[in-house]
Parts: sequence; structure tokens; C-alpha cells
Amino acid sequence: MRAFVYDQARELDASAFADYLDPRTTAVISIDMHRGHLDDSPDCPCPAPRARELVAPIDAFHDQVRALGGRIVHVKSVLRPGGADDVGGIPSAWRRTFPLHIGPIPNADAHAIEGSPWTEWVTRVEPGDLRVENKRRLSAFYPTDLDFLLRNQRITTVVLDGGFTDCCVLNTAFDANNHNYRVIVLRDLVRGTDAHLEAAALSMVSLHLGLVMESADLLDQWRANRA
Amino acid sequence: MRAFVYDQARELDASAFADYLDPRTTAVISIDMHRGHLDDSPDCPCPAPRARELVAPIDAFHDQVRALGGRIVHVKSVLRPGGADDVGGIPSAWRRTFPLHIGPIPNADAHAIEGSPWTEWVTRVEPGDLRVENKRRLSAFYPTDLDFLLRNQRITTVVLDGGFTDCCVLNTAFDANNHNYRVIVLRDLVRGTDAHLEAAALSMVSLHLGLVMESADLLDQWRANRA
Amino acid sequence: MRAFVYDQARELDASAFADYLDPRTTAVISIDMHRGHLDDSPDCPCPAPRARELVAPIDAFHDQVRALGGRIVHVKSVLRPGGADDVGGIPSAWRRTFPLHIGPIPNADAHAIEGSPWTEWVTRVEPGDLRVENKRRLSAFYPTDLDFLLRNQRITTVVLDGGFTDCCVLNTAFDANNHNYRVIVLRDLVRGTDAHLEAAALSMVSLHLGLVMESADLLDQWRANRA
Amino acid sequence: MRAFVYDQARELDASAFADYLDPRTTAVISIDMHRGHLDDSPDCPCPAPRARELVAPIDAFHDQVRALGGRIVHVKSVLRPGGADDVGGIPSAWRRTFPLHIGPIPNADAHAIEGSPWTEWVTRVEPGDLRVENKRRLSAFYPTDLDFLLRNQRITTVVLDGGFTDCCVLNTAFDANNHNYRVIVLRDLVRGTDAHLEAAALSMVSLHLGLVMESADLLDQWRANRA
Repeated sequence: MRAFVYDQARELDASAFADYLDPRTTAVISIDMHRGHLDDSPDCPCPAPRARELVAPIDAFHDQVRALGGRIVHVKSVLRPGGADDVGGIPSAWRRTFPLHIGPIPNADAHAIEGSPWTEWVTRVEPGDLRVENKRRLSAFYPTDLDFLLRNQRITTVVLDGGFTDCCVLNTAFDANNHNYRVIVLRDLVRGTDAHLEAAALSMVSLHLGLVMESADLLDQWRANRA
Repeated sequence: MRAFVYDQARELDASAFADYLDPRTTAVISIDMHRGHLDDSPDCPCPAPRARELVAPIDAFHDQVRALGGRIVHVKSVLRPGGADDVGGIPSAWRRTFPLHIGPIPNADAHAIEGSPWTEWVTRVEPGDLRVENKRRLSAFYPTDLDFLLRNQRITTVVLDGGFTDCCVLNTAFDANNHNYRVIVLRDLVRGTDAHLEAAALSMVSLHLGLVMESADLLDQWRANRA
Repeated sequence: MRAFVYDQARELDASAFADYLDPRTTAVISIDMHRGHLDDSPDCPCPAPRARELVAPIDAFHDQVRALGGRIVHVKSVLRPGGADDVGGIPSAWRRTFPLHIGPIPNADAHAIEGSPWTEWVTRVEPGDLRVENKRRLSAFYPTDLDFLLRNQRITTVVLDGGFTDCCVLNTAFDANNHNYRVIVLRDLVRGTDAHLEAAALSMVSLHLGLVMESADLLDQWRANRA
Repeated sequence: MRAFVYDQARELDASAFADYLDPRTTAVISIDMHRGHLDDSPDCPCPAPRARELVAPIDAFHDQVRALGGRIVHVKSVLRPGGADDVGGIPSAWRRTFPLHIGPIPNADAHAIEGSPWTEWVTRVEPGDLRVENKRRLSAFYPTDLDFLLRNQRITTVVLDGGFTDCCVLNTAFDANNHNYRVIVLRDLVRGTDAHLEAAALSMVSLHLGLVMESADLLDQWRANRA
């Protein structure tokens, strides 16, 4: 089975990772594929332009997952209007630190506001999919009910795709690991701040948190296990 | 005020980060400076050799913090004997993934076992310091009572030092951020798997999570604020 | 200041409870005042008929709170369609135990389903109020983001009104207490399964968790503190 | 199968509660059977005299559980010396409210202090048992690692015995329920503030949270299931 360890393709013994590879106890967690990150406009409130190219491949992957009977949980940031969870209280750190690197973000205050277009999904959400729509900071787990949902569905493995490999995806991988889920991050279906931090985040996952794989390789494993 | 943004020294306006710089509402969280990571022996169960050089500088920094009236919380991994939280249940992911990179770790099963020498502190713990001694995975926050303790002490800023910049330190920075603490990571007092991942983790902190500073610069700020 | 200790009206020294009585750091948490509990129809999925009489008095109290500048958080149960958090996973215990006492609940499976009329608020929700709309079991705190929201607003006292004194209200009081909020339960604005368990739950609150007061007495204290 | 619903013995269909009755996925959680509650001396810091009679019966029950291969988790309150989690920060509510009912508790500040005799177990703890020794407030779940431990051991049912039926036991039952554990409270092996609140708390458990049983009846069920 092919996986990536510290940025190198390696052939691993799939039987040593059998607990990672059962689609019946797996959920795909798709992170923050919404217009507030992906919109190609100057007033995009928290731009993640590198992730735009993921929309079609993620949709295609999710279709394969659904065809195999797997579950998909779409998670996105939504903030209460009026700023009670963020700018009207204790503001998110990134609002001051990220502009030190990329420059001013003029419309940042509009980020993720409930009921605004910035919270609309860009990837496709099908009726049978699950949604977590109150991510407030970086993790898909806190302060949402994702862990509650996954336990209730007896999920033991999470497969991550989506936005900001070195931020929300990596944070979610840490949290999933601490809650004892088996973690797989799909390197072809995540994008980071830039290629350097993206690769570094994937290396961290591969050393400390779980498996880094290509989506096609994971689908092959699932199909083989099912046969 | 000097801070590091994506690995570059920058001069930031301290007044824009005033909420980060009050020692009275700050706790230093010192992570995993114990023999299980730092022992220089072949049976060290989870070796972090790069962090050994931190012992004296961290002790010196902590003395300065104590002299300024700051609080220090030492956090370390401790696992129940018999493996009930780890190898006897759902094992930590790193046990399978980290050896893919560094090779076999012969004594890994002895890591952090309660009552064993591998849980002994290497840095100095003074009677007035606080301790969190049931870290079970990577974060200092879950499933420990660190958040409970910090809230009870009305701490709003955490300053991180200690071991594995790209693992437990970074995970703790993510968790602190999600719980709305102001986060500072001291780049001279943390060490990672290697120089590359260490620098990348600090870059991630500087973009998404808070401030990356040298300990001497932070002490200068605290002294200036106090005067 | 009048409060109730183990079902007896007592005159307490307000200065000994000053930290409970500042409206600026207080949020009223109004629990489960929705049609799924309050509808007067045979297909009400989780009937709490005793709480119907609270609708007008709670609305009137909330108006007073708003006039004094206080914050109100409305919390309600909402479950994902398809049962993923409950009957389609690990079902809530009350589904089997409550009917042992009150007999079959024919429409229980419809309880709290997202998008159904059973999740509509019965008490009035004003635009400036806050909402937590993903209570999944009994507590207003887990697995919701209520604690995250309250911390972000620097709330330190919670005042509880609403439904099932001996169930969701009592559970929320326990959780608030464990998170170190000061807790007040308004005995005239909560209702339980029956008068006996209602009184017993309030007695438990008064001994272990905080203050049991009448809403008029609390408003008097707030007005006095403000003057 | 005999169980108690709102204080009445009832004959329930055991097959309808099969998920509650498998000893292999069950842990007994024994709550706060330590000297700080049970010591028969005037300086007992948080007296629970009614629970003293439970020591021998709980020890006998635990021996039966061990003989059947069940797991036992002993949980107790321990507070950091110096008061950092309680009297030196945001003090526990009971310190002000409980004396309103029972009068002054002269030695309350000594309650549960780490390293003091008041944290010594009174019931027997065997080497194979598990311990959670950082309960800080009322629940056995927060801010401890009990949930982490139980998940790691794939426990799905908890059986509660120990002290203060209407306080820590009831709070733990609520938390266990919210985390989707099946909950059984043993009415012969818990004691409350007084007989009235004890019975009321058990009634609440029986309506909302799970099963109230006698320990002998539960052992009979386990033995029958095992045969």
C-alpha cells in the first residue's frame, strides 16, 4: 500500500494498518470548502486560493465514497451575526497575525457570518451527507459536536480533505488523533497556505498522527477490502 | 517589539498586541521536559535528543518568570500502568508511524508509564509551580484539566516552551488558540523533530495562532510593562 | 436578599453573593422552550405540559433583562434528520425509560428533528438575543458551543429558566457549576416532570450548585446594584 | 429483571435492555469513597456520613465484579495544594451553599488537598483496578480523563456506586448519559444528602438517564448472560 512518509512515497504493509482501512467505520471529514475561503473576488474574507482547484476532485472523490457506502461529514466555519463568538468578544488570533504575512484582508470581519453568502458550500453536499455548521475557530472538533456525531455513528477512522493543510486540516488531525480516531489525510485533496507549509504539515501528520495517502490509493484499498 | 513571522525577524507594534503582554494574566506552559524524551540512553522510550540542550535555558527562563511573579505550569505525559490508556486499548498512532521515519524504538512500550523513571522531570519544578501530570496523547489540553486550571487562575495568555515543536507544542498552541487564549511560542526554548519541521511549525504558529518570540524579548516586554 | 434553600425562603446576605449579582457579566440561559416540548397536541414528541404556563412569564422576564442590558441565550434541542445523532446511532436513554413512567410516547421519533415544526421556539427570540441550536441530549453545554460562547462574552454568571427542572435544567446547572460559572435557577420560571421532582431538583441546586431565587427578587437585586 | 422506576420496584423485560447488561463492555465507576467524605471526625472537610455504611458492601460488590472479569474505576476528588483549582481561584459553589443547610464546615478548606490524608481511599483499591484521581468539582467526567479512558477500553455501559446520590453520582449519571454511555445506578450502593434527596435523585435517573437497580439483581443478570 502506497503512503507518504515525510514527503517520500513508501510501500507500507497494509496488514499493519488494517484498522485504518475499513470503509464501514470511516467518515470523510471535508473541511471548510465554502465561499468565504474559495471565492475568487477581492472581498473574499479569508482567501485560500490554492484550494479552489480542489472543488472538482473532492466532488469526484465524494461520489466514489458514497458509491462505496461511506459517510461524508462536511464541516464549515459559521460565526454568529454581531460578532458574539469572535470580533465582538475575544477575536481570533489569525485576524492580527495572518495579515503580517499576506497583507491587509479588507473584508475579514465578514468571514463566516451566519446567513451571509460567505458560508455557502462550494463543494456538493448531497442529502444523505452529514453537516457540522458551527466550527468557530480552526478545529473541526472544538467547539462543535463532531466527536459526538462520530461516536454515535461508531466511526473509528477519519479521512480528511479540504482547506488549509497547515491550519484547520492539521488542527483537526491533531484533535482526531487525541480522541483516538485513526487518521488519514489525502495529500491530493488538501491545500495549504503555500507548497512549503503544505508539505511540512503533511510530513508532521505522517510522523505523529497517521497516514498520508493519495485518494486513488485509498479507494483501491477500500475496494480490495470489500471484495 | 521583535517577533518572528514565517521565520523572519520583524519589528511589531507592541501596542497592537498589548493583550499578549501582561505577565499577571499569563502562564508559561512547559511541555514534556521529562526523562522519557530527554534521557541520553538507548532505552529512552520516545527520544527527543534535540531538546536536551533546552534544560538549562528553560530553567533559567523559569527563574526569571518566577522573579517577575509569573506562573509556570509543567505538563507531562503519564500513562496508567498496564496500558489501559494506550497500548492496552487503542494505541497511539505515533507508535506505528514515527518508526517509519526514525527506525524501530525498542523500548517504546515503556513510554510515560506512571511510577517509572521515564516520567521524572528533567527541568526544575519549584514548590510554587503548578503541575499537570496526566497528558495522555499530544496536547497539553485534552484530556487533562489544563483549561480548567487556567480559567480558574484567570489566565488569558499562554507562553509555550519545551519539547517537539512540530508535535506536542504545536498541538497545544492550536488547542490554546481554539480556547481563546493568546498564544506565544518561544523559539529559543522549543525543539522539534529536526530543524526543518521545527521552523515550519513556528511559521504556522506565526501565521495562524499567535506570536513567535525569543524569550529575552518577551522578558524585556514584561519588564517594560511592569515598570 | 431572598433565596430558597432546600425549599425554604431564606434571607441571605447579598454581599456574600456579590459575584452572582452583576448583570453585566450574566447571561440568562433559556432552555428548550420549543414546540417539541410545549405543543398541546397528542403528537407532541416529548411533552412537558407543565412548562406551557411559563411562556408568558419568561417572555416578560426576558424583556426586563433586555431593558437592563443583559444577554439572553436561547438553547434548544435539534437533531439531524435521519437520526444520525440519536435513533439512527446510540439512542437517547429517555426513549426507553421515560415511557416506563408516563406510558408510550407515540411520536417520540419526531422529537427535535431539524427543519420540523417541533424545533420552533415558543418563547420570543429577539434579534439581539443569542441562540444555541444544537443541543443533542440533556445539557445545554455538551456537545454545544455554549461554554465557548459564554467565555468569549466574558460571562461569569448564568441564570437558568425553561423546561424540565429535574432534567435539562438541573443537568445544565451541574455543567455550569463544573465550568465555574456562578449559577442561579429561577424557581418561578422553571417546571419539572411533576411538583415533587421539581422541588427536589431545586433543593439540590440550592445545596450544591448555587442560588435558587424568584425572578422578581433577582431583578430587584440587579436594579439595586445598577443604581 | 427487577429495576426501580420512580421509587417503585418493577419487573422489566431484560431483553429490551440487553445493551445495558454485558459485563465485558461495562465499567463500575466508584465515586469519592475517600476519607474527606467518610471520616468520622469533627474535622472531616466535606462530611457524607450516610455513605460510611457503604464501605463493606461496596468492597464486597467489587470483589464479585472482579471475579466476573469486570473493570472497576475508582474516582476521587483531589485538589492542588495552594488552592489553585478552587479556593485560590474561583471557589466551588458548595462552600457557600451547603453550609446554609447544614451549618458551618470548619475544615472545608482542607477538602481533597493533594497529599493530605483526606484523599486516602476508604474502599479497597486492588492492583488491577483503574484510578481517576483528579476530579476537581462534582462530575467524574469533567475535567478528568474518565471519558478518554472508557473509550480507550471500549466501555459502553457504566455502573455507578459511591457518594452523594443527589450530587456527584447524579452529575456523573447526567454526563455519562450525554456521552452516550448506558447508565446503571445501584440504589443499595449509593447514599445522598438525606433519604428524601437520595430517592428523588434515583427517580430522576430512572426517568431520564438509565436503570436503577439493586447490585444483587445486576450480578444475577451478568451471571445469567455469561452462562
